[in-house]
Amino acid sequence: MRAEIIGVGTELLLGQIANTNAQWISSRLATLGHSVYHHTVVGDNLKRVTDSFALAESRADLVIVTGGLGPTEDDLTLDAAQLVFDQELVEHEDSMEKIKSYYQRNQKFMSENNRKQARVFENASVFQNLEGMAPGQLVKHEDTLWVFLPGVPREMKYIMDEYIIPYLQNNYHIESQIVSEMMRFIGIGESDLETKLQSLIKSQTNPTIAPLASEGEVGLRLTATGESTEQAKEKILSLKTEILTHVGKYYYGSDAITIEEKVRDLLKEKSLKIGSAESFTGGRFLERLIALPGASSVCQGGYTVYTPEMKERILQVPKFLIKKYGTISHECAEMMALNAQANLDVDVVVSFTGVAGPDASEGHEPGTVFIGLQIGERKPEVHKFHFDGGREQVRVRAVKKAYEMIFHRLKN
Amino acid sequence: MRAEIIGVGTELLLGQIANTNAQWISSRLATLGHSVYHHTVVGDNLKRVTDSFALAESRADLVIVTGGLGPTEDDLTLDAAQLVFDQELVEHEDSMEKIKSYYQRNQKFMSENNRKQARVFENASVFQNLEGMAPGQLVKHEDTLWVFLPGVPREMKYIMDEYIIPYLQNNYHIESQIVSEMMRFIGIGESDLETKLQSLIKSQTNPTIAPLASEGEVGLRLTATGESTEQAKEKILSLKTEILTHVGKYYYGSDAITIEEKVRDLLKEKSLKIGSAESFTGGRFLERLIALPGASSVCQGGYTVYTPEMKERILQVPKFLIKKYGTISHECAEMMALNAQANLDVDVVVSFTGVAGPDASEGHEPGTVFIGLQIGERKPEVHKFHFDGGREQVRVRAVKKAYEMIFHRLKN
Repeated sequence: MRAEIIGVGTELLLGQIANTNAQWISSRLATLGHSVYHHTVVGDNLKRVTDSFALAESRADLVIVTGGLGPTEDDLTLDAAQLVFDQELVEHEDSMEKIKSYYQRNQKFMSENNRKQARVFENASVFQNLEGMAPGQLVKHEDTLWVFLPGVPREMKYIMDEYIIPYLQNNYHIESQIVSEMMRFIGIGESDLETKLQSLIKSQTNPTIAPLASEGEVGLRLTATGESTEQAKEKILSLKTEILTHVGKYYYGSDAITIEEKVRDLLKEKSLKIGSAESFTGGRFLERLIALPGASSVCQGGYTVYTPEMKERILQVPKFLIKKYGTISHECAEMMALNAQANLDVDVVVSFTGVAGPDASEGHEPGTVFIGLQIGERKPEVHKFHFDGGREQVRVRAVKKAYEMIFHRLKN
Repeated sequence: MRAEIIGVGTELLLGQIANTNAQWISSRLATLGHSVYHHTVVGDNLKRVTDSFALAESRADLVIVTGGLGPTEDDLTLDAAQLVFDQELVEHEDSMEKIKSYYQRNQKFMSENNRKQARVFENASVFQNLEGMAPGQLVKHEDTLWVFLPGVPREMKYIMDEYIIPYLQNNYHIESQIVSEMMRFIGIGESDLETKLQSLIKSQTNPTIAPLASEGEVGLRLTATGESTEQAKEKILSLKTEILTHVGKYYYGSDAITIEEKVRDLLKEKSLKIGSAESFTGGRFLERLIALPGASSVCQGGYTVYTPEMKERILQVPKFLIKKYGTISHECAEMMALNAQANLDVDVVVSFTGVAGPDASEGHEPGTVFIGLQIGERKPEVHKFHFDGGREQVRVRAVKKAYEMIFHRLKN
């Protein structure tokens, strides 16, 4: 199908946010084999939104609209669609109930304009928005399929993945099938990975191989086409096997998995409990683990000891040690890991101490970091790093590095 | 001027990159006082690019095109423009010299298609591209001003800042100056805020008021035009004062400030030290504070006690209390706050216990949350909440709510 994606919202035209919704939807439609011919962004103006909708209907088989479904005066996506379709909107009972009960439950006043968010077209398929108020809806008008989605990325993605993509897959069959897999690697740089796979990358046309670097790790996107999904999958599998013979030791998983999830799975598999003792990372290591469902079976708890006094007071790092070596030291990272392990009674502890910046500390430049890793009854290992970037990058990179260390230690 | 920004490139329609060029250009034009009415993205297809250009010329005074100026077959921005303008392209000598000398200097073979990148319209103003090959150009056709820029953000930004923005400033003097301010509120919903300000919002035309909801808070963007910046600022100030008389108690700051920064500033101002005792939030509350520069002067440390055993073991929550009330209880949140305050020796402690989901726990539905707040020697206050959304939202919303509680308690 020829598709068009329309973003409605003056905030996009003012440059306050980028139209990442269009990018995300486009990449989803591409894997389904549909061709996106246009992205359009238009502001909260009834005439211009209506004109954009009329133009889209004249040139596209599928139009996906994001934004303009909120409760305020500015939100006029459905009003514009009503003009183009010449159809009435009706109140969707389930959605209205949901809005009402939200306000009751939260003991807030529901103003009349909240009713707006329950409006749907009479012949629409309505999709519940678990993440927010306004439902998604799908309407056929003339020969065009229209999809209306909230502008909040989380809500939009939920409805797309849960309803719209399965609907398109079931109702609009594409001749040649596309399968793609994102292989994820940690502990190797992008150019190093590319060099190791150079001949493969150059010779491959189906599947194609596209490297993609992100914070502290590298991905390889393999994309294959075939007459059937099975055929395309076989091509992916055979290339993947080849890739793994070269760089398998850095590979931790494919597609949606994250390194945090991989570490959680390894801990679970080995029945290990983990805790942490964190200074400048502020508890971020453990927080990223507790963010995952199923964390409670592997994750107990931890300490955030930001100041030297806290390291002494609640983690029993001896005064003399801090005086002699400073808190930003191999010795302090080691003692933090050891004492946290004893206090928390866990198998694995990771400890962090260092300088996130912007200022130097104890004579160390921003980016200087010690990470300690204590597993079972082994002697703790402590590594010193220097991370580039501002305060936030240093913190994020240090935490990612700790996950990398644990992954490489536990995977065998 | 009414402006339109057109991105040319199939990679945008495949979702490989987001159209951040349009965002960046929009924000620049907004500060100059020009109104962007449309963003369009179109692929590398001569017919569709030509159609998009013709449409843009019919509705805009200023069209800025990014992308499609490279040397390959796919790069056809200028070919399309040629069709719309009915004008010939000529080779730009300086640009051609630059391309040739690049290939000589790098001892690379210059293929014939590299000449493409030196093409310009005869009556164009041509702008050297210090960052790459293809120059930028500015052409007047009919009543529309056309700007063609490379798609590589670095090259595009260079030519915009160096040439196009000064050109617009010098030649399209905006009589009126624009000033805008984003007022930030917490503890009040979007529609409630709008209802309280309804008459103001309806009657206002200069400044305009635009509400914008984000996670757990609401913004109001005030935008004023005036003959001078000072005059516009005065209008903003007078409206802001009026708004504050209605909803001032929810206001925490304007523009780039976050609620975490506001809380850090309030703690600093009052010389208070803060710590935390967190269960399902996994340390996120403290982590968001330590993420800020200057955190060490107000933030000491905290506990992440995810399991019941940890609450007993490192935070001394009594066994009988957990047995009688459960860990997801008013009593447990209170005891966590009290014991953490004593252990950490801090002025303020916030405690979290609850169910993030996806599964229920101790008979409580996901989203059930108790937040404790202990300040100085007062009796701790504990509030029960129900947050909607998945595991991550519940955690994020709970942490935001705690910042809101502290803000409202400290601001007076």
